[in-house]
Amino acid sequence: SFSRGMQTVTLIPGDGIGPEISAAVVKIFDAAKAPVQWEERNVMAIKGPGGKWMIPADAKESMDRSKIGLKGPLKTPIAAGHPSMNLLLRKTFDLYANVRPCVSIEGYRTPYTDVDLVTIRENTEGEYSGIEHVIVDGVVQSIKLITEDASRRIAEYAFEYARNNQRSSVTAVHKANIMRMSDGLFLRKCREVAENFKDVKFTEMYLDTVCLNMVQDPTQFDVLVMPNLYGDILSDLCAGLIGGLGVTPSGNIGANGVAIFESVHGTAPDIAGLDLANPTALLLSAVMMLRHMGLHQHAAKIQTACFDTIKEKKVLTKDLGGNSKCSEFTTEICRRVQDLD
Amino acid sequence: SFSRGMQTVTLIPGDGIGPEISAAVVKIFDAAKAPVQWEERNVMAIKGPGGKWMIPADAKESMDRSKIGLKGPLKTPIAAGHPSMNLLLRKTFDLYANVRPCVSIEGYRTPYTDVDLVTIRENTEGEYSGIEHVIVDGVVQSIKLITEDASRRIAEYAFEYARNNQRSSVTAVHKANIMRMSDGLFLRKCREVAENFKDVKFTEMYLDTVCLNMVQDPTQFDVLVMPNLYGDILSDLCAGLIGGLGVTPSGNIGANGVAIFESVHGTAPDIAGLDLANPTALLLSAVMMLRHMGLHQHAAKIQTACFDTIKEKKVLTKDLGGNSKCSEFTTEICRRVQDLD
Ligand SMILES: CC(C)[C@H](C(=O)O)[C@@H](O)C(=O)O
Ligand SMILES: CC(C)[C@H](C(=O)O)[C@@H](O)C(=O)O
Repeated sequence: SFSRGMQTVTLIPGDGIGPEISAAVVKIFDAAKAPVQWEERNVMAIKGPGGKWMIPADAKESMDRSKIGLKGPLKTPIAAGHPSMNLLLRKTFDLYANVRPCVSIEGYRTPYTDVDLVTIRENTEGEYSGIEHVIVDGVVQSIKLITEDASRRIAEYAFEYARNNQRSSVTAVHKANIMRMSDGLFLRKCREVAENFKDVKFTEMYLDTVCLNMVQDPTQFDVLVMPNLYGDILSDLCAGLIGGLGVTPSGNIGANGVAIFESVHGTAPDIAGLDLANPTALLLSAVMMLRHMGLHQHAAKIQTACFDTIKEKKVLTKDLGGNSKCSEFTTEICRRVQDLD
Repeated sequence: SFSRGMQTVTLIPGDGIGPEISAAVVKIFDAAKAPVQWEERNVMAIKGPGGKWMIPADAKESMDRSKIGLKGPLKTPIAAGHPSMNLLLRKTFDLYANVRPCVSIEGYRTPYTDVDLVTIRENTEGEYSGIEHVIVDGVVQSIKLITEDASRRIAEYAFEYARNNQRSSVTAVHKANIMRMSDGLFLRKCREVAENFKDVKFTEMYLDTVCLNMVQDPTQFDVLVMPNLYGDILSDLCAGLIGGLGVTPSGNIGANGVAIFESVHGTAPDIAGLDLANPTALLLSAVMMLRHMGLHQHAAKIQTACFDTIKEKKVLTKDLGGNSKCSEFTTEICRRVQDLD
């Protein structure tokens, strides 16, 4: 409700177009009178004691306190051994669920309409274990690690999500015909958890079959839950169906309310600073964040203003097919947010 | 050329609709006067000495002699421990390259037009190593195995394929940002081989990015080469773009000319024996086979007759949007094959 006090959010503007699109979101939140207080932080990893890469102490401290982060794109550092910032953040805060709603946007044409699904990706293990060995010269193995605990946790998250978001089915995506033990364990946990959510329909499908069906008719899918790498692939595929990473929000969810919401597109250095960037993905991520914080009315207002702006097609950034500046697009959304009051 | 002698092909009709669609292909080959002598075999695995699953001796012997197989769909046996027949065949004959051309079919509407690409999948190792362990209770690992030899071999195959088929680029698909050692090795071999094929453009792309770009604009891709699991996923995704497994051919290629061509759809037990099946995927696989055997004129004739039949839309099976029987569709293709003489 509008009367609760201000909540702190750690804002990680990021690199390239990150600062511009972050500023756009801050402006739109102001227009919506969202009770959010921003605490800006830089998370770029530094070498801590013992040579371990870690995010700066003041960023860690801010997140530990606020529990909620909003993050723009980060450039991949070129220093040897520097970790992927995305992976480091997921690890530092044990953000075990990556959630990406993919919803067709009226007025933004793609080959598909009426897409309305959510990919829920296990975010901590699987093919991302980081364990690899050279066995003998010319023979390498990578280890995919699947645990009962992480599988149960992500399955529970998916079913809770379905229930809380009025979604009717959860599909477990797997290759248990090939990886019988690892994907088999993942699948077994999904089946077990499904037993406790009789109100949500449960289905299972091979990853390859999902990909084939997805491009033929994405409307048959609702909530999909899967191990790490499959989520990496499917979430990007689904983003493609609705128009790409420029319009796709993402949330990384941990335990006890901790979460970081982020745009998953790149830093677009070629247009950085030119007021040409499209803030939609970060804005819709921020809308997910508002819902996560229980600020549903602010979320709804901002989302409506954003979608109406796109639908009307008068003020659009270049990548959306228009020729307006980022600031003009932002102002238009602010105007609509205020009209909705 | 039409004058060379008959060549033997091992025909594995398969289960469900397998026999019907195989009969259709045989009929069309007859109409085209293709110099092929069929040797029919059943490959369903049996337990050999020492309890090892193997394909029956007479099937193995036929393939060893003919070197070329054409295979319909096989049902998955339910006996405990029974291997996937697809995997067993790939292993038995060391069919290291899975090749799937995906070409838009004129007259068969999908959300995409002008798709014309080929996925080339490493078919022997990677995530399909079959090596899995329980580490401790509730913790499982699967091993992805990447070797220098298999990576070089598939990269060489892809570049040779591109050169021999007048294709201009090869894209290596990987996640070497995550699996730095295994996908890193695969990618390194692709780069090395690329050095020997300066006439073919080489690019590399993350698997997730390929999926996203693929559904947005598949026309940007040409030949794609990748480790086993990525190929499983991408080949199905691409099949979806052009109309599904009912129209997508596939070839499994080994050393010294050994190869099995197959439709990759299921056995469709619900319509088996009803003369309703669509033989297109098996027929186009057989066309790939003819090219592999150097019978380019027969291949071209049959392909043209098949595509013309679909384009004209008068005689189509149900799944293609018509209401003709399998036998009527087959007769129409035969008629056109003969007209092309
Ligand atoms: C940047 C990269 C490490 C990351 C991944 O592979 O998970 C990205 O693709 C994503 O989906 O967030
Ligand atoms: C049936 C199955 C073992 C197989 C695979 O996963 O490779 C199939 O999906 C394929 O693509 O041929």
